[in-house]
Amino acid sequence: MGKHYDELIRLSREVSDYSSIGAVLSWDQETYLPPRGARARGRHLGQLSALAHRLATAPEVGAAIRGAEGEKLEGAAAVNLREIRRSYERQTRIPTELVRELTETSVAARQAWKEARAKDEFPIFAPFLEKLVALRRRYAEAIGFDGEPYDALLDGYEQGMTAAEVSRIFDGLRPRLVALAAKIRGARPLRTDFLHRSFPAPGQARLGRRVLELMGFDFQAGRFDVSAHPFCTSFSPDDVRLTVRYDESFFNAAFFGLMHEGGHGLYEQGLPSAHEGTPAGEAVSLGIHESQSRLWENQVGRSRAFWRHFFPFVREEFPDALRDVTEEEMWRAVNEAKPSLIRVEADEVYYNLHIMLRFEIERGLLLGTVRPADTPALWKERMEQYVGVRPDTDADGVLQDIHWSGGMIGYFPTYSLGNLYAAQFLAAARKAIPDLDERIGRGDLRGLLAWLRTNIHAHGMTWRAPELVEKVTGEAPNPDYLVSYLERKYAEVYGI
Amino acid sequence: MGKHYDELIRLSREVSDYSSIGAVLSWDQETYLPPRGARARGRHLGQLSALAHRLATAPEVGAAIRGAEGEKLEGAAAVNLREIRRSYERQTRIPTELVRELTETSVAARQAWKEARAKDEFPIFAPFLEKLVALRRRYAEAIGFDGEPYDALLDGYEQGMTAAEVSRIFDGLRPRLVALAAKIRGARPLRTDFLHRSFPAPGQARLGRRVLELMGFDFQAGRFDVSAHPFCTSFSPDDVRLTVRYDESFFNAAFFGLMHEGGHGLYEQGLPSAHEGTPAGEAVSLGIHESQSRLWENQVGRSRAFWRHFFPFVREEFPDALRDVTEEEMWRAVNEAKPSLIRVEADEVYYNLHIMLRFEIERGLLLGTVRPADTPALWKERMEQYVGVRPDTDADGVLQDIHWSGGMIGYFPTYSLGNLYAAQFLAAARKAIPDLDERIGRGDLRGLLAWLRTNIHAHGMTWRAPELVEKVTGEAPNPDYLVSYLERKYAEVYGI
Repeated sequence: MGKHYDELIRLSREVSDYSSIGAVLSWDQETYLPPRGARARGRHLGQLSALAHRLATAPEVGAAIRGAEGEKLEGAAAVNLREIRRSYERQTRIPTELVRELTETSVAARQAWKEARAKDEFPIFAPFLEKLVALRRRYAEAIGFDGEPYDALLDGYEQGMTAAEVSRIFDGLRPRLVALAAKIRGARPLRTDFLHRSFPAPGQARLGRRVLELMGFDFQAGRFDVSAHPFCTSFSPDDVRLTVRYDESFFNAAFFGLMHEGGHGLYEQGLPSAHEGTPAGEAVSLGIHESQSRLWENQVGRSRAFWRHFFPFVREEFPDALRDVTEEEMWRAVNEAKPSLIRVEADEVYYNLHIMLRFEIERGLLLGTVRPADTPALWKERMEQYVGVRPDTDADGVLQDIHWSGGMIGYFPTYSLGNLYAAQFLAAARKAIPDLDERIGRGDLRGLLAWLRTNIHAHGMTWRAPELVEKVTGEAPNPDYLVSYLERKYAEVYGI
Repeated sequence: MGKHYDELIRLSREVSDYSSIGAVLSWDQETYLPPRGARARGRHLGQLSALAHRLATAPEVGAAIRGAEGEKLEGAAAVNLREIRRSYERQTRIPTELVRELTETSVAARQAWKEARAKDEFPIFAPFLEKLVALRRRYAEAIGFDGEPYDALLDGYEQGMTAAEVSRIFDGLRPRLVALAAKIRGARPLRTDFLHRSFPAPGQARLGRRVLELMGFDFQAGRFDVSAHPFCTSFSPDDVRLTVRYDESFFNAAFFGLMHEGGHGLYEQGLPSAHEGTPAGEAVSLGIHESQSRLWENQVGRSRAFWRHFFPFVREEFPDALRDVTEEEMWRAVNEAKPSLIRVEADEVYYNLHIMLRFEIERGLLLGTVRPADTPALWKERMEQYVGVRPDTDADGVLQDIHWSGGMIGYFPTYSLGNLYAAQFLAAARKAIPDLDERIGRGDLRGLLAWLRTNIHAHGMTWRAPELVEKVTGEAPNPDYLVSYLERKYAEVYGI
């Protein structure tokens, strides 16, 4: 392309390589690290991230960017310049002192949060939340924003998205979800007892492998292992690692957990290798990443067609536990919707309601319209209003999530955006593949994966999330797809 | 100590950290890496080793060494300065061009060796061996030596050892080993059929864990996993990884393999944490490392006392395979000695004879008295003379080992030195713990480990191998201990 651009790519790949090396160490930390190994591992990870940060914000990067701006770049090169420049500017605008203060405060806040949650004493965490909000507001101001401080933080997770836009989307979702939830609460409860029978881990592992293979996950370029909290990480498109946690007395946990992480993994495996280590070879955003996991976990994994094909394998693996269960009962059971206090246990109907109240509270915190001290009461009130249950404790309320204690404010909406994009993408895929359900019912998921590869995975960061959604589906992010899908499915599941 | 010394330690620890990070990636490569992940992994490892090399040979290191020389260092600090200076001088004496040429030639030579071995065609490998010998001779000349070129290479693996000294030691071993082997060939063969029955891997894994726990391996600070070629690696004294390969139709492979790697692992876990990342916290040499693995594998693991304690556990795990086997038969069987073509399958009697012929050949190659083209014939001749068998092919002869194809010339003697040190160390331990055999027979190995910790592990690189042996045992490395141990044991094993 040009010598400045080539230099920029060399620098970008070097940073990316050190990040990938750090990802290997983090993966090992969650899967196989012996307890006493944690001390050295922390030092090694700190050293690598300091090195990557130093390289990413080095003056040479700035010089290469300025040089490359005169080189008339096109295609992937233009994407790379745009994204490397954005990231460089974001990172260099934050004073080193503020980064340090945020890191230190987060470490202390994480400890305080753990203690507060264990003792159910919000006041232990309150001063740290206050300090983190103040620091994140300074952070937002350092980066700059057009609308409100929240935008600058959200943009770090979901580029191009704003608080106003999230608000518009959530306003479209909330009343219909609340109404659907109310209807389901009035319906006859489903039979779900058998999901809590005995499912030994080795059988779950075999089924997990089978479903990942069916999805098209390439085991020559990835694997899965056990960890306390499931995740997906990637060291290159040819080395994608998933993790799983087995609950031997609850079928759903590992099975849908693996389909979820597998969805993330398929995205990583589908990114263009030619652009590895540069933005043109990276995922668009957290929301788009989440759309891939939710699409496979929910839109596919909880569909009637999927269970038509897959139920015999599950029953073959667990003949005792499922001795008196039909394919239809299984499909209904994995779709059970009921109010719960905890976000990570929520189903498709309730999940986004959990997110909305978090979004409203954190947006208010940054604007100054919500005081940290008021969040416990506000949380309870909104839970009752949206989800229909009121937590007795703050441990099951405002203290349940780890995010804020690490300074991650502005992150939550990406989960809901993922759900919403997933529904909108699948509606588009259905137009392109009219017999999609019949194919899924035959266990043929190749067409769907090929569509995702071509339309989403292969493009890396070419378009930002809202542009990509519009490009692929013909319209801006629209909550109607998600609500219509849920209304349709749940009418059938509960016969309402 | 002084500001230059402190700076030197900071630099040394930084290099050590990047080496440890590389070790994590290498461990993962051998245990869990999906096949297609190898490409990115190679790039990441190359990048880390280039970084570590650049940092280790940076001018700042030279300046800190010169500054620290004026700071009157004592104890561990003096050891660190001595060893960091030595390593810095060795590394900076080699021209970058030569390092590059060696690396590139090794990559090509490795491929050629694989092909040559698969096709049993030595001429495919010959030109590469020739080139590697020439490069390693230039390497030795760049470093410098008092005696002969071999010394400079051997010193890189076993500091303070020379070809002349190895020769003296081997001359003490050879005739008595050859005589012992001849006697055993004349004795009645042992019963060993049961070692080749069915030993399912899960049972072998449980036994492996049990024997490692008995040895005192700390599973809070280490673990073991499966790999094609067993090894031990360490990321800190608190994170030591062993690997094992299960052969379900041969008991010895995994069991003694794990005791062997466990011996290495105990050494790594016993190094002083306070000096982590500096020579005072590192292993002395390859030979001393090997002495720890051989001591546990052979001196302990193949002793009569050990089987008195351990046989019931093995029979409990494998009641079918060992239904008609006594403790005594088991002990004899695991000590079977017989000539074989392959070094890695050799027993305690024959192993060192395999090493001697390699040492003689590689020493001659460097001196120019042996031509690469002559090595196949020379190998066969010496095998017949020392081991008593003659390979039909070069694949089972001169091409069997991987070492030379990677430029590792001067490495082999460290295996035999390990055997020799192990026997000499155990003789000293026996003096300190007169009831050692009774303790082992009761399954109490703590006293032995404590002795090794105090006398060897805790000292890091304080003394070089020959000094350490003298310090611990009261005399210079002496082959008599090894031969006497073997003569005594084999007289009993074979009733000769």
